[in-house]
Amino acid sequence: MELGKVLAALADPHRRKVVTDFLAGPDDAERTCTSFNLPVSKSTLTHHFRILREAGLVLDADYGNRRGITLRRADLDERFPGLMALLENEARHFAE
Amino acid sequence: MELGKVLAALADPHRRKVVTDFLAGPDDAERTCTSFNLPVSKSTLTHHFRILREAGLVLDADYGNRRGITLRRADLDERFPGLMALLENEARHFAE
Repeated sequence: MELGKVLAALADPHRRKVVTDFLAGPDDAERTCTSFNLPVSKSTLTHHFRILREAGLVLDADYGNRRGITLRRADLDERFPGLMALLENEARHFAE
Repeated sequence: MELGKVLAALADPHRRKVVTDFLAGPDDAERTCTSFNLPVSKSTLTHHFRILREAGLVLDADYGNRRGITLRRADLDERFPGLMALLENEARHFAE
């Protein structure tokens, strides 16, 4: 994981929402790309998840008939301490 | 300050170097754009400092014959707790 790529991935509000939605749920949650209800086209959705995956923020498991997205929370916490807390804090800030 | 703009500004390694150089010095340091020795053209340097300023990371004081750049450390620590620590940690990681 490279900080530059991670920050670039998180600079986009839709990609940030994916991560903060994961952070608001159980640690080992596996979700589909569409479950985040991002208001974007299918091709844009694919693009966003590719950027998240290439930055190392999520894993994308291909089960043939569906894909399962998971947040690499433990890896992120080890490599970039404080980053997930920063995003959680920001998500709370805007929820208030 | 918006987190998206701040993260986009910090996604670039040259702009991140400006911030980590400030973090390695005294809190109230005022520096010139050229003092960071970024290996870029003058117009690219101007561009980078504009992005940093517009994101709210630095203040840029115009003294007529020179400009003084300062890091908005207190504002950043208040608005985005943990962000500066993350960058310092990363700078140490790569210095080791």
